[in-house]
Amino acid sequence: MPEIVPLRLDPSGFIELIDQTLLPLEERCIEVHDVAALCEAIRSLRVRGAPLLGLAGAAGVALAARTGPADDLSLREAGASIIATRPTAVDLAVRVREALTLAGAQPLDAELRRAALWQSASQLLHARQLEDRQLAALGASLLPADCAVLTHCNTGALATGGIGTALGVIRAGWEAGRLRECYATETRPLLQGARLTMWELARLGIPATLLPDTAAAALIASGRVQAVITGADRIAANGDSANKIGTYGLALAAARHGVPFYIAAPTSTIDQSCPAGEAIPIEFRDGQEVGGFGATRWSPAGTRAYNPAFDVTPADLITAIVTEQGIAQSPFGTSIAGLLAHP
Amino acid sequence: MPEIVPLRLDPSGFIELIDQTLLPLEERCIEVHDVAALCEAIRSLRVRGAPLLGLAGAAGVALAARTGPADDLSLREAGASIIATRPTAVDLAVRVREALTLAGAQPLDAELRRAALWQSASQLLHARQLEDRQLAALGASLLPADCAVLTHCNTGALATGGIGTALGVIRAGWEAGRLRECYATETRPLLQGARLTMWELARLGIPATLLPDTAAAALIASGRVQAVITGADRIAANGDSANKIGTYGLALAAARHGVPFYIAAPTSTIDQSCPAGEAIPIEFRDGQEVGGFGATRWSPAGTRAYNPAFDVTPADLITAIVTEQGIAQSPFGTSIAGLLAHP
Repeated sequence: MPEIVPLRLDPSGFIELIDQTLLPLEERCIEVHDVAALCEAIRSLRVRGAPLLGLAGAAGVALAARTGPADDLSLREAGASIIATRPTAVDLAVRVREALTLAGAQPLDAELRRAALWQSASQLLHARQLEDRQLAALGASLLPADCAVLTHCNTGALATGGIGTALGVIRAGWEAGRLRECYATETRPLLQGARLTMWELARLGIPATLLPDTAAAALIASGRVQAVITGADRIAANGDSANKIGTYGLALAAARHGVPFYIAAPTSTIDQSCPAGEAIPIEFRDGQEVGGFGATRWSPAGTRAYNPAFDVTPADLITAIVTEQGIAQSPFGTSIAGLLAHP
Repeated sequence: MPEIVPLRLDPSGFIELIDQTLLPLEERCIEVHDVAALCEAIRSLRVRGAPLLGLAGAAGVALAARTGPADDLSLREAGASIIATRPTAVDLAVRVREALTLAGAQPLDAELRRAALWQSASQLLHARQLEDRQLAALGASLLPADCAVLTHCNTGALATGGIGTALGVIRAGWEAGRLRECYATETRPLLQGARLTMWELARLGIPATLLPDTAAAALIASGRVQAVITGADRIAANGDSANKIGTYGLALAAARHGVPFYIAAPTSTIDQSCPAGEAIPIEFRDGQEVGGFGATRWSPAGTRAYNPAFDVTPADLITAIVTEQGIAQSPFGTSIAGLLAHP
């Protein structure tokens, strides 16, 4: 199948990114040669998706080492500027800090540090690809033969740098001949489903149908889909899962109609320190994202908006949580702890 | 309160319409002086909303009489061309046929027919205003003190020519001092909530907040709204209600969180010949409406879309159906029949 490579570490010392802001209308790669350019790309959402931002963070510190003296101060300054581009992106901050720790553990030799950081970023990318493949194979085993599946937002290569989480499962199901068709929601307000998921599905040659978010409950009621599968941004110890706004509504409709609802996310998404969904903080985003898209406006000037980035799906609506380590099912408290204890 | 008059019969013999395609970015009235111009306005959605289209149909036949010989043939031709503009609009066809019947019952005197048709169209408009007011007063009595309410699509003056159905209830609740705030969904794909409902609420001075359709379940889960209220396009004898796509999802979320879910619609919406929701035919609209808005496109070229215009909310999720004749509650079979039998 054609590969989608949203982030590539070029051996000659730069990062190549698919400019996701131009998708799906234009496919263009950009070369990032310094930290300032990387920060601009992250801030402008040319690169996005929690796991992919983590990779971008690690690659960014490696780039800082290659383009500067690679001493502690310059690397720390570079790391701080990268983290500051998306203050709520946990993976980004974690991967930047890991890279700084790795650099600090090396002798104070610029060439050594440069090689270690570059190699580490490359290994992270490779590990992500393996982990996504493992998760996808497990998830695909849950799909019935000749099924159609509904997904939400974008959870594919463009989000993780591997084959994706929920969209990775869909791809693996297609490769295994179990999947007939994929339905994708538009995913207002940022339309990642309409823009990115539909682009990925077209690239992969998987038959795909787009729907307005409003039509999801009707689609599920119609019997056209045999499973709903989404990603997750944070999973509490009891299985309650925070994900892109709109996920909760899909889970409610799936439960009403006896359609299985699956979460696909790496174990790194599980936050054992968070007992239940109520404890997950929800980011509220700029109201300007609602009432229009980009420069196109369709609501009156000065419109006030309610714009949470995530909602929480309670564990009782989730059929299974698929991770790279295995599949958790109800009771999730026990099964999640088991997954993490015996990887 | 400021009045919103989407259709006015000018005594000098023309129809004045608010051009709804320009809302909310521009408020402009257009004068319609002949049937061809009216047909263009209906086809282009300058005038829309089932009850308002009914009024436009009656006014259109009256206009045909004033601008032509007012004989049976010319009126029937005018009526056919008006109906053909929106073949699935039931109210439009019903009101045109009623007007033709009225004309046929008059002597073959052009002036008499002109006067009768014009007066009848004016009376229909007046009756609609009274009926909306009656429904709104009944609905407002269901709202608790100091409440916030969520609504969907546009069900206000712009849709009915009166004060509206669900939005009429919200307006009456505001006038009675019971309503603190109204939340409105964007209502993809045609965005009637973002465009028209938000404009009406702003005009009426009612505090309003817009949300993406994806955020409705999270809003309801948050405890911010004390009721959900929508209109209906067709209500089956058992209370199952077809309404704008997305309504079913709101009802599912409301039921999960114990928030009352109300339908507000005139008794003319009840179809006693239709036993249950399964028997309501669902219109599928052009896929081009999904994956973009107007000339702005955000999905790949050639995207296939699932685009039903309506969904069906099962009666068990509906707390009450508010009509101008009274309020129906479970068991709806009995209560709806009672409303219709004892108006």
